[in-house]
Amino acid sequence: MSRMPATTSVSAMTKQEPARGPEQRKQDSLGRLEQDDDAWVATASADGVPCLVPLSFVWDRGTLLLATRRTNPTAVNVTPTGQVRVTLGHTRDVVLIDGTAEMVEGTDLPAESGDAFAAKLDWDLRGRPSWVYLRVTPYAVKAWREENELAGRQLMLDGKWLV
Amino acid sequence: MSRMPATTSVSAMTKQEPARGPEQRKQDSLGRLEQDDDAWVATASADGVPCLVPLSFVWDRGTLLLATRRTNPTAVNVTPTGQVRVTLGHTRDVVLIDGTAEMVEGTDLPAESGDAFAAKLDWDLRGRPSWVYLRVTPYAVKAWREENELAGRQLMLDGKWLV
Repeated sequence: MSRMPATTSVSAMTKQEPARGPEQRKQDSLGRLEQDDDAWVATASADGVPCLVPLSFVWDRGTLLLATRRTNPTAVNVTPTGQVRVTLGHTRDVVLIDGTAEMVEGTDLPAESGDAFAAKLDWDLRGRPSWVYLRVTPYAVKAWREENELAGRQLMLDGKWLV
Repeated sequence: MSRMPATTSVSAMTKQEPARGPEQRKQDSLGRLEQDDDAWVATASADGVPCLVPLSFVWDRGTLLLATRRTNPTAVNVTPTGQVRVTLGHTRDVVLIDGTAEMVEGTDLPAESGDAFAAKLDWDLRGRPSWVYLRVTPYAVKAWREENELAGRQLMLDGKWLV
């Protein structure tokens, strides 16, 4: 990974926690998926213009369920290929998820999913046709904090947890 | 903007701070540019694959100076168009920057810029040819915290501060 923060210095290194093992990283990542309210969501237009916005989400059935306006770049961008990268946490405690996004109309959303979204985020947009849900199915997950966790950061590959 | 967090609820609204004015947002944004160590950096491949990584930066001459490995997707992606979106802060205190990135070889970097990068991040990669600097010149900046700051979030447009 390309970040190389101040932790390369000796002074910063002394503050570094020991690297977590893979089981702990998976547990921490699932904890973030259950408990965090927001994610950074990156998409790209077909001609290579990046988009990055914060979106609230609920972890539902092994996917991230998000919502956005139908006309927003995030919704428009996922239509051709569904390719999306989502990060949770902050820059020194990263969960990085590559996934495939599909648009789901509120009318097509399973009731339990819409209810889970509404219960967690206090926000229900079923019946509001200018909004759509996006369901992101992860196929790759990495988790790391500081430089000493760059090794071993891959937790899911090709849709399978490695741990 | 597409995020619609839990702040739409009455209970969360009561915790919301008053919306900042434009001058305060600009001042806060410049403060983050001066003081934050890391940014989220989103790029896209020419065929529309999004990339998003955390990168350390220094605010140098009105640009964000970053560094990454030459072979990393971030460096590869900026070559055709230079289009990049950078966010600072967290999902409830966002500075969102659209910019144009150019690759700068360590040998071509002004000494003051390389020195500023090294001084802030304790990391000097001049003379390490597998790494390149990226200089991001902002042309649009938005800043907002919660839903009540979505209005008035545009602070820079077409490279000019609006405030």
